Parts: sequence; structure tokens; C-alpha cells
Amino acid sequence: MRNLSDIVASVHADLAEHIGGGKVADYIPALSRVDPRRFGLAVVTCTGEHVQAGDANVPFSIQSISKVFTLTLALERVGARLWHRVGREPSGSPFNSIVQLEQEHGVPRNPFINAGALVVTDALLAGRTPKATAAEILAFLRERADDPSVSIDDEVAGSEAQTGFRNASLANFIRAFGNLKNPVAEVLDVYFHQCALSLSCAQLARAGLFLAGDGVDPLTGAVVCRPARARRVKALMMTCGHYDASGEFAFKVGLPGKSGVGGGILAIVPKQAAIAVWSPGLNAAGTSHVGALALERLVERTGWSVF
Amino acid sequence: MRNLSDIVASVHADLAEHIGGGKVADYIPALSRVDPRRFGLAVVTCTGEHVQAGDANVPFSIQSISKVFTLTLALERVGARLWHRVGREPSGSPFNSIVQLEQEHGVPRNPFINAGALVVTDALLAGRTPKATAAEILAFLRERADDPSVSIDDEVAGSEAQTGFRNASLANFIRAFGNLKNPVAEVLDVYFHQCALSLSCAQLARAGLFLAGDGVDPLTGAVVCRPARARRVKALMMTCGHYDASGEFAFKVGLPGKSGVGGGILAIVPKQAAIAVWSPGLNAAGTSHVGALALERLVERTGWSVF
Amino acid sequence: MRNLSDIVASVHADLAEHIGGGKVADYIPALSRVDPRRFGLAVVTCTGEHVQAGDANVPFSIQSISKVFTLTLALERVGARLWHRVGREPSGSPFNSIVQLEQEHGVPRNPFINAGALVVTDALLAGRTPKATAAEILAFLRERADDPSVSIDDEVAGSEAQTGFRNASLANFIRAFGNLKNPVAEVLDVYFHQCALSLSCAQLARAGLFLAGDGVDPLTGAVVCRPARARRVKALMMTCGHYDASGEFAFKVGLPGKSGVGGGILAIVPKQAAIAVWSPGLNAAGTSHVGALALERLVERTGWSVF
Amino acid sequence: MRNLSDIVASVHADLAEHIGGGKVADYIPALSRVDPRRFGLAVVTCTGEHVQAGDANVPFSIQSISKVFTLTLALERVGARLWHRVGREPSGSPFNSIVQLEQEHGVPRNPFINAGALVVTDALLAGRTPKATAAEILAFLRERADDPSVSIDDEVAGSEAQTGFRNASLANFIRAFGNLKNPVAEVLDVYFHQCALSLSCAQLARAGLFLAGDGVDPLTGAVVCRPARARRVKALMMTCGHYDASGEFAFKVGLPGKSGVGGGILAIVPKQAAIAVWSPGLNAAGTSHVGALALERLVERTGWSVF
Repeated sequence: MRNLSDIVASVHADLAEHIGGGKVADYIPALSRVDPRRFGLAVVTCTGEHVQAGDANVPFSIQSISKVFTLTLALERVGARLWHRVGREPSGSPFNSIVQLEQEHGVPRNPFINAGALVVTDALLAGRTPKATAAEILAFLRERADDPSVSIDDEVAGSEAQTGFRNASLANFIRAFGNLKNPVAEVLDVYFHQCALSLSCAQLARAGLFLAGDGVDPLTGAVVCRPARARRVKALMMTCGHYDASGEFAFKVGLPGKSGVGGGILAIVPKQAAIAVWSPGLNAAGTSHVGALALERLVERTGWSVF
Repeated sequence: MRNLSDIVASVHADLAEHIGGGKVADYIPALSRVDPRRFGLAVVTCTGEHVQAGDANVPFSIQSISKVFTLTLALERVGARLWHRVGREPSGSPFNSIVQLEQEHGVPRNPFINAGALVVTDALLAGRTPKATAAEILAFLRERADDPSVSIDDEVAGSEAQTGFRNASLANFIRAFGNLKNPVAEVLDVYFHQCALSLSCAQLARAGLFLAGDGVDPLTGAVVCRPARARRVKALMMTCGHYDASGEFAFKVGLPGKSGVGGGILAIVPKQAAIAVWSPGLNAAGTSHVGALALERLVERTGWSVF
Repeated sequence: MRNLSDIVASVHADLAEHIGGGKVADYIPALSRVDPRRFGLAVVTCTGEHVQAGDANVPFSIQSISKVFTLTLALERVGARLWHRVGREPSGSPFNSIVQLEQEHGVPRNPFINAGALVVTDALLAGRTPKATAAEILAFLRERADDPSVSIDDEVAGSEAQTGFRNASLANFIRAFGNLKNPVAEVLDVYFHQCALSLSCAQLARAGLFLAGDGVDPLTGAVVCRPARARRVKALMMTCGHYDASGEFAFKVGLPGKSGVGGGILAIVPKQAAIAVWSPGLNAAGTSHVGALALERLVERTGWSVF
Repeated sequence: MRNLSDIVASVHADLAEHIGGGKVADYIPALSRVDPRRFGLAVVTCTGEHVQAGDANVPFSIQSISKVFTLTLALERVGARLWHRVGREPSGSPFNSIVQLEQEHGVPRNPFINAGALVVTDALLAGRTPKATAAEILAFLRERADDPSVSIDDEVAGSEAQTGFRNASLANFIRAFGNLKNPVAEVLDVYFHQCALSLSCAQLARAGLFLAGDGVDPLTGAVVCRPARARRVKALMMTCGHYDASGEFAFKVGLPGKSGVGGGILAIVPKQAAIAVWSPGLNAAGTSHVGALALERLVERTGWSVF
């Protein structure tokens, strides 16, 4: 392998012509105002190497990438019982589909579609206040990113709440099947706040590093979860991390990953590194267009595919 | 890691109590007659180590595991154009579901559900006779297994043809959308023969080794396909290899794999080894009950998960 | 035909052995407390004959039967434009299914499934207060029933609101597609009140008589809607009045009808009469078990099938 | 009501400008060659009045309209047991959809979608030869039409067989669930022949008259089936006669009807008349564009809606 810095720089440079491609999410004003030409890339290795390019220090809305972190937290909180309430299979459907939920009686296919993430958030709430729960999630991200400046963008959270009819529909639907325990409004409140977490590529890659380290932060030694649990979260990222484009991502990139509608992607290289990319233009599947290309190139040049 | 022989022996021994669990496929007589207490396990490493336990030399019907080999052959024959005719996404549906096929206008979700495998077989046929095509597939398996005694079980092939109404339905359905080029009867003829390929665990693990070797047989140096192609076949095995239980397999085993209704499973450890297990009792998802448990244990003890 | 009084009496008597069959709706306390042995039957003819038997003067919760009246009101209010927002086809799905709504982008299949009824209610609201809208619906029922004592059961309305997660899900889902114009909470408020309308069989048959009269109340001469509109409402009752059991009702009864989960059914004999039956035990399709049998017998003995 | 001849003539005249609209079925050559400007209309009343206009004596391929006649025959043959093998509900799906068939385990929703008609044809076959069965169907049509010149178009039947992949798929699918008793090829053989029945509007209206007569041919007194059975066939025509546009037809026309892809429609006015229209251009739902308009006008002017 060539020097990692060179590879990251070359990937960033090679994609210059693609920057601006795709379509920026426009369902809330705060996301639609983001400059479509932003493109950041950061890698943190288990040996402590930090490499980055472009807008890697600009915070963005991580949106659904937050589901990886809330899943980890919820599994630590309630254990394997969580799997009675949410499945582990690819859905074969878009992120916000409600069809399967009806056919499968309110048990979402996996924790990374919105329905599943709502159940995970409900499990985290567990009778506490939405405020305390959102604070716990934020604290977890700050610790994982080793950076107390990580924050939640209240404007984004507010906008999500005002336009989140589809998520409100999903939450009420799951509640109708008895698979939400807390009031719908409280689950949505936490959910909209976790989606509004704002991190830069550098912070996000750092925050995901414990997954590369099999549940242990390789730079601090902090134990986040058991190795088997970390591997299983990565397995879910591989099979379900990109909704109905998960197969394509596995096929082309070959790493466990999770995308967000803000244009970010977190990918994990087991035992080696965490990668975060960000570029707001989305492809038809709702994944960052340039971000996915960047990961494909990066994996080609590093040989980091798990396959 | 402990000695591989010890691990394989211990996994085999530990599962003694589970042998006989699950339900043997009974849709054709030749499969239903198989002794449910059979249990074989074989590992071949890229360094040439052969380790096995139990009924590892007893041939069994590999059924859908054949799809891995026909996909490799078809990709070499027609190249990436194949992906215009079949997708790369998990289906979220059972192996023989026809629902998505209707919604997606005759383009099967992936090459490992029956509908997709029929399109792959059609691509292989390409105007030749079914006999010649089946012979080519057999020759490929013999070469990959490095064993000219690999054969097709004509009784199984005949039984499949007599009861294969669902596959006949799928094939006619795809044909109605123009996505089969050869006569339905010919495609089914080849398909029923490939499903009737008969290999032992030892042969099957050896035959799959080229995938561990990134497209090159590590023991003979024979080039079967490009490294990127081998990685992509493995990515598909990870996301789609077990129908609507693929997520579960990735979660618990963490290796690319492909199961067959005859009770066999082929799993690949990238860069390291190929594993074949066989035990006829199937779980609800149609995967070998004991076989899946064996792989889970084997991976725990070897640390072979890709995650 | 024998004397109508004799027929009604004989139908009521013959069904004595069936009374108490089926399962009373139990999703809200107010419905579950109703005596399962209640059974009322009322016929009002276009010539002014009133015939009844059993508990025909006991008010019950008409639930979804209210959809016939709100549809009539909304069509008078907004005209045929309503059909841009709701379809006219049988859904082939249960009353509260959300699957089709997703596939058809928030345009409900017909005005008698819950999703469609919510759109109709939204059209009625049209920027007014929920209170004023519910009052208008109540006034319409009182006028149609020619009885100012018709009322809304506030306990039922309140209970619906507390357990109506599925309807809240549907309403949010439709709102996400832009096919509700008023706030979700207001639409649900009116909807839960219209479902809580409380009428006896005698009142309900009287209220539906304008449909038998082609849009004109045959006893007062009041013009409610154009003849073509009345016929079309009846056509929808025939094809869509009983959710995914509409075909069965048409097959066995042969009259346009609308059932409610409170155990009532309103059926219309074009040009001749309106019939209301009530018995709380429901069959698997959510229609009154004894009520459907009673209509079947009544139609056999009167020859009132439209076919 | 004005004189029936005048009404029929005026409807025919008024639709002149619409003739040629819609799209002629082109999946087989024999249908695609039909002149799109053909337009015939025939009414036969229970009192023996024959009125017609346009191309009412030109034979056309009645296609799915044949399902009304095979259903009547099969019910006479096997009785109500037929309903264990086919449902009575609108499907809410296109005529050749396979989705519901999977969800409902091989029991088609109703006898008028293709899947259901295949089961009906299978019930008619009952171990006899396809030739004998097709001959029986033809004899029934000749008798009902009171015209021995009614025939089956062998070219059409042959073309259907060559392109009938979707029907072959449906038949194999049902067979996989055990709901066809005869060989798939034999069921398809009869089915393709019944679809190729060739009648003029005049013949078709005459053939359907027994349904208006509650199972008795009002002109000959021949008893075809019990009154209740005739009414139930009409109920099915109302709720299921036009696939996923049945609601629309009931809404606009208000008569039990059955359409065919050859551009014909048979509609029944209970107790009064049978109507046949034919014009080859189809609307999006596969129903004759001009034919449906003609029925709508005819019903407006005669007041023949059942509602």
C-alpha cells in the first residue's frame, strides 16, 4: 500500500470533477442551504494516524448515521432483548417504507431503517425524559469523538419536527402494534435530535473508531462494548446500512457503512480504521454521490475491502 | 488461534446434540430420503491445509450453492452486462418469491434468488444446447474441485423437473418480461441439472477456494476471474446468500456464504480459506440448522469473521 | 312478496340462535361493554312504511357508517374535485391498511377505507374549526334522520382519540404526501367524533333513505344531492362498503351497504327502502355477524337484490 | 324512457368523435390487426326486443368475457365447492397480477382475474380432454347465443399459446400450491381456446340474456342455472368484472359487466336486458374506451343503473 496520506489526497483530487453531482436533500431548509460543492474526507487508523482532505473539519448533519451510535447504546442498555423488537434483515425497501411494517406486525426489519431506529430510540428512552435521553446520546458522541465541541443543531431538529409526518406516521404505526413503550411525541423528539447531531468528517471518523477496534477505542483503551457486539453492529451496517442500496454498497465498496441524508457516510475497516466522507449531493438511493465514489476509490487503492 | 484440526474436531463434537434438528427438504423423494443425522465439515486453506470432520466425504446435492459457480461462469462469459438483467440487492423475500419480480418488471433482485439464478443460467446458455451448457458447468466444478469424479445426480435433476412448478412459473414470468432469451424449457433443464450437482464437503470447500484466493486458485495458480470480480461475488454472498435470512447469517457468522436446500453451506474466509458444511435438517429459512451453528462456532473459535 | 312486517319479524325470529355469535369490538372500553346479545332491525320504505324488530330503538355507535354521510356532504361541498384526492376502487385490503397508500403515493383507494375517510373529513374541514365541522356533520345526520335527538357519544370519541394510533399513522402518512390540508390533529378530532355518532336502527334507516330516493328524501321532498351522485355513492357502497369483504357482501346480499365496527350495517334498496341492522358481534372481516345474516335472509324473502 | 332503438342509435352517433381512441391490444398479431375504428352495440331485452347499431354483426374475440360463461358452467358442474378454490373479492390488482396469489397461497381472489379463470377452467376439465372441454364450452355459447355459427378462432388460440408466458407462469404457480388438478399444459390449452371465442355484439348480448333472466333464458325458457346463482355471477361481475377498474365501472355505469381485451364488454340489466358493445381501442385499465363511454351514455338515457 502506498502512503495513506497520498492515497487520501489522490482520491480527493480525482473526484474534483464529480463534486456538485447528485441532489441535495431539500425536505428541510437547513439541509437545502448547504453548499453542494462541499467535500470532506477523513481517516483515523487504529494506530492513531489521522489523515484528511477537503472540508474534513466542517460540521454537517449526520442524520441517519446517528443510528449506529444509538444502536450501540441501546444494546448496552437493554441487551439482546432488543432483537425481540427489531429484526436483523435487509428490508429490500426504502428507508421510510411502511409496507413491511404492516406485513410484519410492527416489528421493523432492522435498526437502520427509520422504523427500526424509532424502536431503538424508544428502548433508549425507557421512561426518562426526551431531554435527558438526547443529552446521553450527545455525551456518547462527544466521548467517542474525543471532542466536547460536538453538538446538536437545534434548527435542524426543529425543522425535522415540523416536516416529519412520515416519521410520525411510522411511530404511530409501531405504537398501534404496541412496539413503542413511550409516548410517540417523546420518541420523535429524541429521534429528531439525534438526527440533528452535527459532526465534521474528522470527528465522525474518530467517533466510529471503536467499531474498528472491536468495541474498544484503540486510542484510549475505553471499552464501549463486547467484541462480538461490535462485529454484529458492523454486520448490520454491511447488510442494512444503505436501505435498498445496501447490496450495491457492499458490492462496490465492500466495507460496513452507514449513510445519512445530510451527505455523510461512515465506513469501518475492521481492525484497521474508520473513514468518514461528506458531500451533500445524494444519488437516487439517498446516499452521497461523491462520498460513495470516494469510498470505492479509497478501498481500491488501500485494498481495504473485507472481501 | 488453536490448531485448525482441533477447532474443526471440537466444533463437530460440540454439535453432536444438535444433529437431527431441523427439517429435511421433502419436496422431492431423492432429497427426503437423505439421513437427517448426516453432518460433515471441511476446511481448505489458501496454504493447502485440508481439515475435515464427520461425513465430509459423502456427496450431497448442493442445490442453490451451484448459483455461486454459475454466476462466476456467466460473469466471465458476458461480463458486467449481466447486471442489466439482474440486480445486486437483498430481496427481503423468500428464495422463490415472485412478488418483487412483478413490481420490478422481470429483473430479479439478485443472482442468488431462484429468479436471478434462472437469468444467470439463461445468460450461460446463450443459444447452446442445455446438454452442452450443463456439461460446461460440470466441467467447471470438476476443475475447481480438482476432482474429475464430481457428478450430477440425474435422479435429483429428474425429480426437480417433475415438481418444479414454482421455478417454471418464475421462468415463464421472466420470459413474459423478455428477460429470458432462450426457451423456458431449456433454461429449466440446465437449472435443474446444476441444482443436482453432487459434491462432498471436501470437494465443495476445495471448489470454492478460488474465491478466498481473490479469483486465483491458491493451490494451482489457475486464474478463474479478476480479483475485483471475486470480491464482488463474495459481497453478494454476504448480502444475498441466504435469501431473507442473509442478515441473520451475516450477524451471527460474519462470512460470505451460500446455502442450499440439500443442507450444504459454502462459506469463504477472504485470503484464508473455504469452508463447507453439510447437515440435511433445515431451519425455517431453509438453511442447514446444524450447518449454520457449526459455522458460527467455527468463526468464534478461529476469529474468521470479516467484521 | 309477503307483508313486509311479517318478513322483518320472521328474519328477526329466525336468527335468534345466531345472536351472540361473532366477537364484539374491544379496542375501546365503550364498545367492549355493549351487550353482545343486542339485535335490532329497521326498514323504512320510500312510501313511508316503518317496520322494525328487536332492539331497533337502542342507539349504537355507527362508526364507519358515518363515512357514507361525510362523503355525501363533502361531495356537495367540493364537488367532483374530491376524486383527485381519493380513488373509487375496492382496495382488496383491510380497512386500516397502509400498504396501498404507500404504493399509490398518499391517494387512498376509496372513501370508505379509513385513509380515504380521513381525506374526505379533511375536505369537509376546509379551514374551519373541528368543532364547527363536527357540528355540521351532526346537524346533517339529525336532519336526515328527521330526529333532533341524534347525538355524538363523547366518551366514545375520547376513547378513539386515546387509542387511535393507527388512524394517526394513516393521517400523518397522507399528510406527508400533501394530501391532507388541515393539521393532522384537527382531522383526527373530527374523524373520531363522526365515528362516535350514535343512532338507533330506526334513526339510521331513516337517515339513509335519501340514497334510496336518488338523492331526494322521499318523505319530506328535501333535495340532498343530485340523482347521479346518490347512485354513485351507492355504487361505492357496493364495491367498497365492507373493506376486503365487499365482494362477499355483494355476492350474498346484493345491496349497496356500509358496515361499522360497532356492529351496525346500513343497506340501501334503490327506489324502495333503507335498511339498518345492528348486532355487536363481528365476523372476521369486521362486519356484524348476525347483521349480515339478517340482510341475506331479508333480501332472499323480499327479492330486493339489485342483481 | 324514449324508444330503445332511438336511444341506441343516439348513443352510437354521439360517440362518433371518440371512435379510434384508446390503444388496440397488440400482444398477438390477430388482435393487433383489428380495425381500431370498429364500433358495435347490441341490446337484447327479456321481452325479445333486439336493437343494434354499428358493427354489431361483426365477430370479435371475446377474450376474458368468456370467463362469465365458464364460471356458470363450472358452478353447474362442481357446485359451491368451487369457492374453496377461488375467492369472491375484488383483487385491487391488474388482471394478470401474481402478487396476491403468492400472499394467498395459490387461491386466486376471484374467478375473473386470469389466475381465477384458470382454476375455473381446471374445474371444468376434470379429467376430460382439452378438446372435449373446449367443445363443451363452445356448445354452451352456441346454445346461449341461439346460434350454431359461433366459433373459436384457431389463429387467435394459437397466438395466445405462443405468447402466453404470463398465463403459463400463473398456471404453474397455482399448480405449485396444488390448486390445479390437471396438467398445466391442458389447462392452458382450454383457456387459450375459450379466450379465442368469436362472437358479434348481437350474439354476445343474446348469449348473456340468461343472466338478465335470473338463470332462465327468457326467450326460450331454457333453465341454465338457479336464480340465486345467476344473481351471484352478476354480483361478481359488478365487483370484479373489470380488474382494478371495477370500482370505476360500477361508479360510472352501475351495471354488472365483464370486459375483454379484444374490446368487447358484456353488461347485464337485471330482469330487463343484456347489452354488448365492442370497440377495440382500450383505456389504461384494458377496457374498451368507446365501449365504456357507450355504456355510460346508454345507462344515463335508459335509467338502467341498478343503483
